[in-house]
Amino acid sequence: MTSRPICVLGLGLIGGSLVRAAVAAGRTVWAATASEATASAARADGYDVAANNDEALVRAQDADALVVLGMPLPAVPGVLRRVHAVAPHCRLTDVVSVKAAMRDAVERYAPTARYVGGHPMAGTAESGWAAGSGTLFGGANWVVAADDGTDAEVWADVAELAWDCGARVVPAGAEEHDAAVARISHLPHLLAAVLAATAAGDPSAPGGDGAGALPMTLAAGSFADGTRVADTRPELVLAMCEGNRPALLAAVDDALGRLGAARGSLASTGGLAATVNAGHRARQQWRAARSAVELKVPRDTPMARLRELGREGQLLVGWDEG
Amino acid sequence: MTSRPICVLGLGLIGGSLVRAAVAAGRTVWAATASEATASAARADGYDVAANNDEALVRAQDADALVVLGMPLPAVPGVLRRVHAVAPHCRLTDVVSVKAAMRDAVERYAPTARYVGGHPMAGTAESGWAAGSGTLFGGANWVVAADDGTDAEVWADVAELAWDCGARVVPAGAEEHDAAVARISHLPHLLAAVLAATAAGDPSAPGGDGAGALPMTLAAGSFADGTRVADTRPELVLAMCEGNRPALLAAVDDALGRLGAARGSLASTGGLAATVNAGHRARQQWRAARSAVELKVPRDTPMARLRELGREGQLLVGWDEG
Repeated sequence: MTSRPICVLGLGLIGGSLVRAAVAAGRTVWAATASEATASAARADGYDVAANNDEALVRAQDADALVVLGMPLPAVPGVLRRVHAVAPHCRLTDVVSVKAAMRDAVERYAPTARYVGGHPMAGTAESGWAAGSGTLFGGANWVVAADDGTDAEVWADVAELAWDCGARVVPAGAEEHDAAVARISHLPHLLAAVLAATAAGDPSAPGGDGAGALPMTLAAGSFADGTRVADTRPELVLAMCEGNRPALLAAVDDALGRLGAARGSLASTGGLAATVNAGHRARQQWRAARSAVELKVPRDTPMARLRELGREGQLLVGWDEG
Repeated sequence: MTSRPICVLGLGLIGGSLVRAAVAAGRTVWAATASEATASAARADGYDVAANNDEALVRAQDADALVVLGMPLPAVPGVLRRVHAVAPHCRLTDVVSVKAAMRDAVERYAPTARYVGGHPMAGTAESGWAAGSGTLFGGANWVVAADDGTDAEVWADVAELAWDCGARVVPAGAEEHDAAVARISHLPHLLAAVLAATAAGDPSAPGGDGAGALPMTLAAGSFADGTRVADTRPELVLAMCEGNRPALLAAVDDALGRLGAARGSLASTGGLAATVNAGHRARQQWRAARSAVELKVPRDTPMARLRELGREGQLLVGWDEG
């Protein structure tokens, strides 16, 4: 394994958890954040926080560190400009949710950086440094973008960081990653918002005004589960969802079609079996995927083969040195 | 409080939990179930299970017990015919999810029973006798139907049973109850099914076939929460949802409208703020309703006043004997 230093820019839930996990794994880690309050909190917890991104990036350039971008998508271009100015050839990854938009931003603002996209599939409805945890990535799946032409050395750096944090690596192309997260992460946030608002009702809706507080008084299990992620800070949800517009549109259209079909069936025959059975089967399919095979791969595995492994549901847990 | 005996017909999750809770509260309780295996399991756990519904109903007639119907809606008419034949004037309630359809079924099949509808807002994705628990109703809200003309004596019987089980009573009209549960219980089941099926994808959907197992491999927090109730046995979901057709149609149309508006906004301006913010506010509204006022009411409170209290979000916890 490597002892490459790690430079984390951004100390929210994910960046802050990454700093803690990488330090716990024995890595040399420093960070920077745009928030003075967060910097103080992280320093008080014993972590190495530079005065600003430029200072952190100078150190990264000197140490040939892996730089990790951990800010919401809208803040990325400004930070990439500093990367290009201060450490233009650095090893670069990110923990931001969308991969095609990140790749395009890097090509535009920091074109000489050795960039390999990443996305740890971990999170809570909480946010900020205080909500972070060094164990957030334990057992989680961490996508590492494996498009053709990817820098294999940096790909290995990112995979080893994920493994050091206790995660399993899932290789995927940027576009297929974005299509998948639109369906399993961004659409759930959108449907949670729609469900919460529909349940709360409004004066013009049947059952809304007349029933007053009744629906919210009665809401329990299924409502609570189905709307839990609507607790997430709206600006974080918007950054994620709006940043994955084309893939999310396709997912929303698919959901609208399925909900419309259910509506038609309920109105005409009164039956919902096709909808309910399909959902039940999909949950079973998901549970089966949870017990996917863990695999070690040779260091020189080609990107095309890595993507295939990702599509097969294989989870990479280290190098096959045999 | 009363010591009125309780006769529970049906020993699934809710009926089985009710038997345990009422016995723990010191009530005399007997039950019946259509399943010989369930009857044996419940007897082995020390509960009094009659040979069949008729035997249980003869005892209820003799003891002036409160009879509780605890089977899925499709099985209700057959049981009501036996109620009418064996104990035509009995005190009768139910723990089935829809109240207007139950009232109509009682009027048709057991028109002389002293019926007051009930609905404890408690449950899990599990089902069956073994999944039940005497603490399932602790802190839960239990709707007791309070339409004009309701038999006040039986209303009190049902409220006291709910209180003995540790629940708070929410009075509501049958129709306003059904409109509320369509939004906070049946729509969540439908959206969970749609989300699960959309996320799992299919060969004709973008991101489905090409990505293979990728979406299900990556699905975690928000997918898991949003689809949890899709684990429920489909036949139970169908009985609930299809039994509340008119109210559920209105709720689905409202959700379709909101999701369609989000789609349009994402496609045109790229913005989802209105949708996401409305969902976030609704969750806050729900959390506020969780800390609703607990109240004791005089025994002679009129039904119209009880319904008002329900609409205000008040939770009844006993009689005001002052």
